Amino acid sequence: MKACIFFDVDNTLFPTSEFAELARRNAIRAMVETGLDASERELYKGLQRLIREKGSNYSNHFDILLKRMGVERPARYVAAAVAAYHNTKSSIQPYPEVPKTLMELKKRGYRLYVATNGDAVKQWDKLIRMGIHLFFEDVFVSGEIGEEKGPSFFQKVLARARARPSECIMVGDRMDSDILPAKKLGIYTVRVMQGPYSKGKGKADAQIRKFSELLGIVKKL
Amino acid sequence: MKACIFFDVDNTLFPTSEFAELARRNAIRAMVETGLDASERELYKGLQRLIREKGSNYSNHFDILLKRMGVERPARYVAAAVAAYHNTKSSIQPYPEVPKTLMELKKRGYRLYVATNGDAVKQWDKLIRMGIHLFFEDVFVSGEIGEEKGPSFFQKVLARARARPSECIMVGDRMDSDILPAKKLGIYTVRVMQGPYSKGKGKADAQIRKFSELLGIVKKL
Repeated sequence: MKACIFFDVDNTLFPTSEFAELARRNAIRAMVETGLDASERELYKGLQRLIREKGSNYSNHFDILLKRMGVERPARYVAAAVAAYHNTKSSIQPYPEVPKTLMELKKRGYRLYVATNGDAVKQWDKLIRMGIHLFFEDVFVSGEIGEEKGPSFFQKVLARARARPSECIMVGDRMDSDILPAKKLGIYTVRVMQGPYSKGKGKADAQIRKFSELLGIVKKL
Repeated sequence: MKACIFFDVDNTLFPTSEFAELARRNAIRAMVETGLDASERELYKGLQRLIREKGSNYSNHFDILLKRMGVERPARYVAAAVAAYHNTKSSIQPYPEVPKTLMELKKRGYRLYVATNGDAVKQWDKLIRMGIHLFFEDVFVSGEIGEEKGPSFFQKVLARARARPSECIMVGDRMDSDILPAKKLGIYTVRVMQGPYSKGKGKADAQIRKFSELLGIVKKL
């Protein structure tokens, strides 16, 4: 019988990549809607190029995009884009069956934790927006722990949760940051086969396609 | 007969100060709701103190507030506060009768403009959120013009609107930035007697308490 389950956040509890894509498309549509004289297709291509160059941290992308296009006085379009982008991002929803499954695991007496890379406030923000933060005993974020997910991160997390590896389960989508380091310490690993990282090779102790399959797996352990 | 009307934004088109106050209260409530062990009263006092010290630019206020209180791992509360704060701020609504009055002025053939201090993207964001940005021929923001509202700002704005002072009206709540500099150039001034700045002394060419009173004033000119 296991006692603790750790969950990754991005592309494990909700479709991060899909929402990012939707947020970009909504931002572009909002700029055109506000009167920008350009096609959505053209804007999308320009944005894709920018993301390839500068990474996906968006704070100034719309600004730069419009400057490159030679748009004078871009403030109105930047405001429209940023508002649409944030509205989309702030309406994130968990994958189907995530809240129901978490609730069922709580009922069965498991202690649930989040173990994720990223900025602590941003990761908390996602959990709060999805309305699932109260399910977790604690939330461990690399930005707060002081290092990215790896064997040492998981050792610290085990210590804080006062748990031995053999009584824990790690649920995540990525081999490199979720499955391999947890497995190395002897934690039972479950890989969520959704999102862009599910295409990479490598096997966890169990694979799931639907979140609720976790209930059956956990029962057998 | 006048041709152009310029409008200030904050505390003229919507109750800026009331929304800021509501946003702060909602942020504090969200922190307590997320489990912070403190009273709303105590948090509010601490926040007021911080605002007096650091000004009302909030980006890090919740962070600092919690650090001062010695809260360990404050990320969850900061995330809850910032989400509630931004949700409130992004749901700003114009003063009663503002959209209706703007629409009636458009029907009568006036060219409407915004003339405001602040950051161009932030001011555009407010107009877009309120759904009134399409009423305006153009939006003049100090951050884009290169100087704060004063006689020289209004001269530039008149040039851009291709209007003479005698055919223009300025509507705003503040004597220092709205009424006095516009009056100096010979623009007809209307002061909105709402919000914190309406308490200061000084007279415009006309005063209004309800936004729709503007229609009667404009008719007589």
